[in-house]
Amino acid sequence: MGTELKITDLRSATCCKPLVDEALTEESAAGLARSFKALGDPIRLRLLSMIAARAGGEVCVCDLTDAFEVKGPTISHHLRVLREAGLIDCERRGTWVYYWVIPAALTPLSQLLDTSALTATI
Amino acid sequence: MGTELKITDLRSATCCKPLVDEALTEESAAGLARSFKALGDPIRLRLLSMIAARAGGEVCVCDLTDAFEVKGPTISHHLRVLREAGLIDCERRGTWVYYWVIPAALTPLSQLLDTSALTATI
Repeated sequence: MGTELKITDLRSATCCKPLVDEALTEESAAGLARSFKALGDPIRLRLLSMIAARAGGEVCVCDLTDAFEVKGPTISHHLRVLREAGLIDCERRGTWVYYWVIPAALTPLSQLLDTSALTATI
Repeated sequence: MGTELKITDLRSATCCKPLVDEALTEESAAGLARSFKALGDPIRLRLLSMIAARAGGEVCVCDLTDAFEVKGPTISHHLRVLREAGLIDCERRGTWVYYWVIPAALTPLSQLLDTSALTATI
């Protein structure tokens, strides 16, 4: 799985301090809010989870559209929003487009919402 | 800090498997997307971070409004969205309302976006 996964920008990974450690700057909040907004839709969240959970690290768009009742163009729109938010990337190979997640984009969001420092003191 | 923190619903904490482990169900995605949507605004994200980072565990609304250029009613609206999403709670004491975060609501979101299982295999 790991060797097949494409990590397009692992070097640009920035680690966020948890919210409970330090209040966000206005600039950081703007960038992070864009990512959370992209996650704030049930279809996009399911698409992201289907891509992230795929052994092998990538998913053909043909395997994504069948899982939803909405039409292909709607799925394409949501995939584009996730891609523009930098959470996934894709590549066309022949007829189909293949998608994969960008862990370096998800990790800072996970770290930001980590409350273990808080709950450890209870 | 810990003893002063109000944990209103720690018992209802549900731990999410990371996206990279398992695709979300439609039902789970709907609930989680609501939370992410609440985080998808820079002012709300900054408010949440200011509340979460406060030593003592809670913040007077009077200390939140001064940090923003927008008016009080706008801040109140964003605080209400965060509260309705279950991410924060509040209590009125005399003139002021005091806010605190609900770690049990943030933790599942953090766990969901945890990609350490993925990056560990690279």
